[in-house]
Amino acid sequence: MARTGRRPGPTSTRESIVAAAAECFAAQGFDATSMRGVAAAAGVDSALVRRFFGSKEQLFTEVATALIVPERALAAVAAGAPDAAGARLVRYFLSLLGDVSQPGPFFGLIRSAVDSEHAAALLRRLLADRVLGELATSFRSENAELGAALAASQLVGLAVARYAVRLDALTAAGTEDLIPWVAPVVQSYLTGTRIS
Amino acid sequence: MARTGRRPGPTSTRESIVAAAAECFAAQGFDATSMRGVAAAAGVDSALVRRFFGSKEQLFTEVATALIVPERALAAVAAGAPDAAGARLVRYFLSLLGDVSQPGPFFGLIRSAVDSEHAAALLRRLLADRVLGELATSFRSENAELGAALAASQLVGLAVARYAVRLDALTAAGTEDLIPWVAPVVQSYLTGTRIS
Repeated sequence: MARTGRRPGPTSTRESIVAAAAECFAAQGFDATSMRGVAAAAGVDSALVRRFFGSKEQLFTEVATALIVPERALAAVAAGAPDAAGARLVRYFLSLLGDVSQPGPFFGLIRSAVDSEHAAALLRRLLADRVLGELATSFRSENAELGAALAASQLVGLAVARYAVRLDALTAAGTEDLIPWVAPVVQSYLTGTRIS
Repeated sequence: MARTGRRPGPTSTRESIVAAAAECFAAQGFDATSMRGVAAAAGVDSALVRRFFGSKEQLFTEVATALIVPERALAAVAAGAPDAAGARLVRYFLSLLGDVSQPGPFFGLIRSAVDSEHAAALLRRLLADRVLGELATSFRSENAELGAALAASQLVGLAVARYAVRLDALTAAGTEDLIPWVAPVVQSYLTGTRIS
């Protein structure tokens, strides 16, 4: 579901370019991705990529807003008992990241945020404010902003440690092995309940 | 203390190169750093950098092993009550990262691990195995390896969210604001005690 891989059947050139860009950002990060490289991966002329999207920043925005849809994330996390919201969030986040041996384009957004201020700003807005901030606010936490940021730190850290640093214990663990450890942490950050 | 900035007074050419490399890795990450760029920053010929260190990978190893000294980290964390080890670890880690507005070379190691397998392997060995793994083992945790990896994920995530993504709530929070939230999480991972 997180994959933006080309669908079977006819797809527009625009969609092919966005899918190719998502793969480039995931494989190389923001800095090392070029409009020319994306064009080559999509099998189109680089002038066309520039005509459709203007700049690498705009292309990145297109990829990010296709992958992170705050309403969809919130709906997935909100459906169920409030005390299991952390578990649903961790499960949703891991499903977006995809398989450990072949991380999907969502990981590209996270790794790009490390070397691009544009990517960092998008993640702040889409993931931290509009998803985690909304969730923390829904729990009427007194520390909603800090709690949302700390939840983001744990999720982003899990992504980096599992998909980039590739710590053995995290690549070996499946989603259901990780949930019992990470979900209560995320839940406590979001609800603003300090662990004693 | 985390800074490898040039000391006042005479310093060897070798030390100047390592210090310049640390600054380049911190500012640009591993991929975008070149031996030529390091040489320019150190004010020496790039042939000299290559003669001293051979490759960018070896230069990175030199920087990392100067910054992460497992014995020193373990000594800092071990000194005191066991139930406050998490707090000491978070405080030590944040002191290595340095000021929010001007992250030191230690952040360069973390950001480099996102785009370099060589850097990732070093972080796995130095930080995850030799520091966090030792700590988790000292608590006789049944899940020492997973716990150490999860503690690493929270610490690395805090670094990425605060210094790269720069979430407002995390850049505004000082070390002592973060400790009450993050230390119990790290403590619970290291001791293998799940939060219910």
